[in-house]
Amino acid sequence: MSSYIESIEKLLAKLVKFPGIGRRSAERIVGYLIGSSYEEAKAIAQSILQLKEKVRFCSICNNLSEEELCSVCRDPKRNRHILCIVERPGDVASIEKTAAFHGVYHVLMGSIAPLEGRGPSDLKIDSLINRIRQEKIQEVIIATDSDTEGETTALYLSKIIKPTGVRLSRIGLGLPVGYNLEYADSATLSKALEARRDI
Amino acid sequence: MSSYIESIEKLLAKLVKFPGIGRRSAERIVGYLIGSSYEEAKAIAQSILQLKEKVRFCSICNNLSEEELCSVCRDPKRNRHILCIVERPGDVASIEKTAAFHGVYHVLMGSIAPLEGRGPSDLKIDSLINRIRQEKIQEVIIATDSDTEGETTALYLSKIIKPTGVRLSRIGLGLPVGYNLEYADSATLSKALEARRDI
Repeated sequence: MSSYIESIEKLLAKLVKFPGIGRRSAERIVGYLIGSSYEEAKAIAQSILQLKEKVRFCSICNNLSEEELCSVCRDPKRNRHILCIVERPGDVASIEKTAAFHGVYHVLMGSIAPLEGRGPSDLKIDSLINRIRQEKIQEVIIATDSDTEGETTALYLSKIIKPTGVRLSRIGLGLPVGYNLEYADSATLSKALEARRDI
Repeated sequence: MSSYIESIEKLLAKLVKFPGIGRRSAERIVGYLIGSSYEEAKAIAQSILQLKEKVRFCSICNNLSEEELCSVCRDPKRNRHILCIVERPGDVASIEKTAAFHGVYHVLMGSIAPLEGRGPSDLKIDSLINRIRQEKIQEVIIATDSDTEGETTALYLSKIIKPTGVRLSRIGLGLPVGYNLEYADSATLSKALEARRDI
């Protein structure tokens, strides 16, 4: 049911495809664009095109980059012997925000999800194994999500990485920082108990 | 704190200005755009530009239009003697969806909000009064929001429209359709009681 004029409906149809954007949110965004200057709208349109023109994936780790290698892989200060495996490029950004990791990454570009028909061959696993074998990696940290797909992926990776003999670990699961115990679900809580440390 | 490459941060900075879009939502939208084809991204960028190039405000009622007059004002079947006053062009779309109103509209382009420094002179009120005087309007329905600003605007409008002698009404306030009485707030409930009808 089309209630708006054509140019509005056309943009609405594009916007509702964005993740997390429903019809109402799309209408509010269109309202914002109508109220903004032509220059601002043009700048937004150009930013979208530039994103598509400039962003590519790092040829070593698959992280997002505007160059052949991403900023992490280019950085001479990073420890190339420690490799952190994540599902998506956005996960690299999240870990970089912590400033707590000084190694390099490998982005799988997804996770194993048999129910959705995604298997190991859909992920960047061949290049991962090649890196572990050829780049003198000493330690591998599996930082996939803690959901079913992430855990399945972690399990699969641990099986194929173990034979290489590197030190292998999974990021710690437990109570989030600043969290109230009474709101924690029991799966998280039991993981947190398992992961207890002597003090 | 910039964690992404330049072309991503540039687009993120634009997207977080959209109403209802925070940093996390913006990141998800960028992820969607990175995953979509160049053609799709180009189509989105073009839709934004076309919106700005084509959309203007109806010279009679201020509704959104791609022509001098909006589709309502152009429609010969509409009753030009009944005028419905709304705050925003989006409100016209909402009422049109009901298909319950066959008159014409007047969009105020805002509401009176003294705390935010918006007074009657910021609204399209002069042209409203001219229309009521010159276009043989018989009935005016004030359909501004039922929040403080909308009610203030309705009160102001009723004072300046009454002297023109037209029949004047405010849209009914009460319990929304399909709503559970126990979840209704008391302000709505008392309005619903006030608005009771004999059956």
